[in-house]
Amino acid sequence: MSVRLKIEVTRGAARAGKLITPHGEVETPVFMPVGTLGSVKGISQDVLEELGVEILLGNTYHLYLRPGVETVRQMGGLHRFMSWDRALLTDSGGFQVFSLTDLRKVSDEGVAFRSHLDGSPHFLSPEKAMEIQIWLGADIIMAFDECTEYPADARRARASMELTLRWAARCKKYFEEHKFEVPWGGKARVAPDAFVQEGSAGCSSFDTQSAEPRLAGRANASAPTRAWSSPANGATQGLFGIVQGGMDVELRRESAARTIDIGFPGYAIGGLSVGEPRELTRDIVLSTLEHLPAGQPRYLMGVGTPEEIAQYAQAGVDMMDCVLPTRAARHGLLFTSEGKVSIKQARYARDENALDPACGCRVCRRYSRAYLRHLYAANELLAQVLNTVHNLHYYLATMRTLRAWIRAEPDSDAKVTGV
Amino acid sequence: MSVRLKIEVTRGAARAGKLITPHGEVETPVFMPVGTLGSVKGISQDVLEELGVEILLGNTYHLYLRPGVETVRQMGGLHRFMSWDRALLTDSGGFQVFSLTDLRKVSDEGVAFRSHLDGSPHFLSPEKAMEIQIWLGADIIMAFDECTEYPADARRARASMELTLRWAARCKKYFEEHKFEVPWGGKARVAPDAFVQEGSAGCSSFDTQSAEPRLAGRANASAPTRAWSSPANGATQGLFGIVQGGMDVELRRESAARTIDIGFPGYAIGGLSVGEPRELTRDIVLSTLEHLPAGQPRYLMGVGTPEEIAQYAQAGVDMMDCVLPTRAARHGLLFTSEGKVSIKQARYARDENALDPACGCRVCRRYSRAYLRHLYAANELLAQVLNTVHNLHYYLATMRTLRAWIRAEPDSDAKVTGV
Repeated sequence: MSVRLKIEVTRGAARAGKLITPHGEVETPVFMPVGTLGSVKGISQDVLEELGVEILLGNTYHLYLRPGVETVRQMGGLHRFMSWDRALLTDSGGFQVFSLTDLRKVSDEGVAFRSHLDGSPHFLSPEKAMEIQIWLGADIIMAFDECTEYPADARRARASMELTLRWAARCKKYFEEHKFEVPWGGKARVAPDAFVQEGSAGCSSFDTQSAEPRLAGRANASAPTRAWSSPANGATQGLFGIVQGGMDVELRRESAARTIDIGFPGYAIGGLSVGEPRELTRDIVLSTLEHLPAGQPRYLMGVGTPEEIAQYAQAGVDMMDCVLPTRAARHGLLFTSEGKVSIKQARYARDENALDPACGCRVCRRYSRAYLRHLYAANELLAQVLNTVHNLHYYLATMRTLRAWIRAEPDSDAKVTGV
Repeated sequence: MSVRLKIEVTRGAARAGKLITPHGEVETPVFMPVGTLGSVKGISQDVLEELGVEILLGNTYHLYLRPGVETVRQMGGLHRFMSWDRALLTDSGGFQVFSLTDLRKVSDEGVAFRSHLDGSPHFLSPEKAMEIQIWLGADIIMAFDECTEYPADARRARASMELTLRWAARCKKYFEEHKFEVPWGGKARVAPDAFVQEGSAGCSSFDTQSAEPRLAGRANASAPTRAWSSPANGATQGLFGIVQGGMDVELRRESAARTIDIGFPGYAIGGLSVGEPRELTRDIVLSTLEHLPAGQPRYLMGVGTPEEIAQYAQAGVDMMDCVLPTRAARHGLLFTSEGKVSIKQARYARDENALDPACGCRVCRRYSRAYLRHLYAANELLAQVLNTVHNLHYYLATMRTLRAWIRAEPDSDAKVTGV
């Protein structure tokens, strides 16, 4: 098994440990920032590393359309394409395809849909979703599921769940037959050895003896961007199953049991944050968690606010992702230890305090609320960049603190649930 | 005199040295990136420092409209407002106001104009432009001039030059009477001493003894963003004069002579890059340079391509600024040792080479052309950020290399032109 969870400490239902992946270990519980198109909007990979991001999420639907799977595959997979050698997870594309309400048609075979970009026709099936995700080469990939709409009646919820279960089995079958086709696996292309010289002073150099300074380019058209190390041969991705079942706890129990019967190295709770009340989300998550294997990773998809990620981590969720910190940041909505701040407000125009006086991020250490407010009001690009850095830091710090809390007072059942 | 040029080496007409300002020394010849609204679009001040930027340009017209001069002044001046403690230069607002062709009315008193944002009426005079620039507090500020349009007949070019000369004298008079009102000068507000704790793990912290992890904000609403050091009391800004005269070398000579008679610590060549052919720009620059004092800084405004900045530095220009590297970057046009690259082109879609194999910038060390092309094609924010970092690096590296070339073989007249 290429992906597994090493639980080191538990406290109540919460567990702290490490998710072991082909591209390194990830401290859990973990919040995974969303890098839809192979980029967390506005943030360079250097900054993500500095923020302590150990795993990023990419969106299969978007990457499939742009730049296209064949391009990413030829470039050595998503890690190498985006120059990110830590862990990656891709979703199956299902959630995005199902949100194209007017542009899709579902059958047992799969989903026919039209691109939101140009209306071009496409078809995703469990097998196709696996092929794409194997070729993208994330460390963790997700089964192709149907995200049941909300509300859905009992019959519809069951039919949707059954479809997801049939697709899950097909996903596993295809994956087992093709898992060594991952770009960094046994058939991986050889990584180039050469580095571009790091200390290079600049893009051009002059001949200092010449009367006229001239460009003397040290051009080497075959120079790679940087050396790249692939995981050991034989490593494969981890394919996670997804529990559906709408808002019915009994269907959720059945979905969990039958997905576990198929057998995956990790399980996700899908089909939430689709418009239902927050209390209902919580009820479904808590009841579903009871039916998931204690020793394997549990991934709650698409959740949530800082309070929610802390709450669900305490309830025993190991992995979460959400566009909220990054999307809210681009709209000037910032999370702080004193609550949410809408930085566009005129009250901050001459406020020289840090955005969050309790925060140690690059933004709060350097800039005032007044400057951040000005950047946002003037529609400066830097507003989106700085706001995103802060919000990501806030989410990551929330999880760091939660992990420390779990580890601060381990209780006696640590050994029981550890693997 | 608060701003002066220390010429250390000459080679032909070119000079290498240091521009001494209240906020540090600047290696010359220097290219100054443009930070119109107190931000180089998309680039954090940390990154500018890492790139080696020692002086930035701000646009008075834009800052006057947003966030407004009174706000910047109350925040301690532009340096402190934008958290930049290296040198700054502001233009006078004249160039921008004159480009509002349909929204302005010029008289001897000044220029009435309407905001490009909301059409609100405003008035700029030499005195007002000085007041604004003193309150913004850049190290180098510019006289309020009329940028003569191109083409202009002899009568119009002379009238415009005479107006600029009358305004230059009024600028100097106002500046001398008010120069101690600079925010960081003798009347500067006291800089706060306290730092926000640098090593802070995050924005929130949990009480590890509590059964429930809770936010325990270390909020201190009065915490400043960071300590700030002002220049020594008594330091003032440097007000530079601007030579106009259209495309007439004799008018340019007269403008230079009479501007020098008024007396400034540095001189700019204005009124170029207004639509004239490049050869004409060059002729006017070279002939005007002959009439400027050898021992004082010479600033060529709004120029140009990498080839032009190298050429003009060789001709004896000490300071240049241009929006080209940053604006072109945002449009996917990149400067490399192998020429210009339009990164949107499909030919780069699977090109895994560095953008410029001879470049040592963060972007070229890490990312491939294929990734940069994808980011641009997908309209990802990060495209604008990374492209700007590269282009700025290219310009700054060009000037670094040129300074090294000047210093590599000093000729005998170094002492003659040094001050």
